[in-house]
Amino acid sequence: MKPAIFSKDKLVLDTSLFVNPEIRHDFGGSPTEALNGFLALAEKAPALEFYMPSSIIEELLNFVDIAKLPPSFTALIRQKSPSKHELNSPALLLYEFVEEMRDRVNKGMRIAEKAARNVNNTPERELIQSMRKNYRDAMREGILDSKEDVDLIFLAKELDALLVTVDYGAIKWAEKLGVRWLIPTKFKDYLLNFVDEEDAPLAR
Amino acid sequence: MKPAIFSKDKLVLDTSLFVNPEIRHDFGGSPTEALNGFLALAEKAPALEFYMPSSIIEELLNFVDIAKLPPSFTALIRQKSPSKHELNSPALLLYEFVEEMRDRVNKGMRIAEKAARNVNNTPERELIQSMRKNYRDAMREGILDSKEDVDLIFLAKELDALLVTVDYGAIKWAEKLGVRWLIPTKFKDYLLNFVDEEDAPLAR
Repeated sequence: MKPAIFSKDKLVLDTSLFVNPEIRHDFGGSPTEALNGFLALAEKAPALEFYMPSSIIEELLNFVDIAKLPPSFTALIRQKSPSKHELNSPALLLYEFVEEMRDRVNKGMRIAEKAARNVNNTPERELIQSMRKNYRDAMREGILDSKEDVDLIFLAKELDALLVTVDYGAIKWAEKLGVRWLIPTKFKDYLLNFVDEEDAPLAR
Repeated sequence: MKPAIFSKDKLVLDTSLFVNPEIRHDFGGSPTEALNGFLALAEKAPALEFYMPSSIIEELLNFVDIAKLPPSFTALIRQKSPSKHELNSPALLLYEFVEEMRDRVNKGMRIAEKAARNVNNTPERELIQSMRKNYRDAMREGILDSKEDVDLIFLAKELDALLVTVDYGAIKWAEKLGVRWLIPTKFKDYLLNFVDEEDAPLAR
């Protein structure tokens, strides 16, 4: 039976879907298995188009064994970067980013000071480890912290696509740009809506 | 004699011109005297329009004694913020900002680690002071680090104005946006080109 009620849609996918254990287990055990599991479903959902920016594909290939992917990989996941020389973003976004980084830079300094004071005489190794963790959390959680993140939100914006990622920073900034995003734990359910069980896998 | 060869121009001014000792001494001793010295010249240069974003005026008033400014202050320096809800900036700018912050965040962590290790057993007070300085330099030098900086470059962009600031971060990002800027040590010389010595101060 055709899933006639669902119109065609474009999706921009992040590496995290096939790496983050909580999400990838919906599709398979290892990252390679998860990606294969996803591709098997994607093949049966001709109404959906899947995109990944080049930087995300590059990142993904650090986690999966490319020799174990089906030939359909490059046809089912379209590699496309945003037209970054043509796109504009609202000036307000830069304001918000600058303000947010300012707060985080101050927070980072307080974390550094606390470690340098080391009032509890924590052993050095442990002190450095805990400082690194706190610093990274303060500086990176919930913010665009890489060009890969920026690629995801601008590509989704350009294509008017649905963004699927586990990265809270990318979701937060997608929200500011009016980019649609999917709760990542619902990704498999979403796909199943479009799967056309009676059709043979399509040559797309 | 009228300085006929110079066409009208708009300038966006930063607080730093009246606070930074190297520059303000061209106009007067204290920040208040420097601002008064500037206003005396500005009054005689009717071809120039001077602008400051509200955030910069607010900052400036932390340094100068408003009771000692001439009534012409609010007429000579126009208070205007950029139309931040209408303006766009190239997406590339956000990419560059995210990449640059990423480098700096990593550098900040190395500085924090060095302080936490404290291999030379520097006394705590000195250790913290030097760490703070290094951290601030790494995180803030040459980058947009406040909404005031963003206001300056977007206002200059919106007005097609000449940006005058001592802030290297604002200059660097103005450059990316094609905003004109003036070497701040040449600010007084620039003004003198427009000063109409024979005219009485104008009511503007």
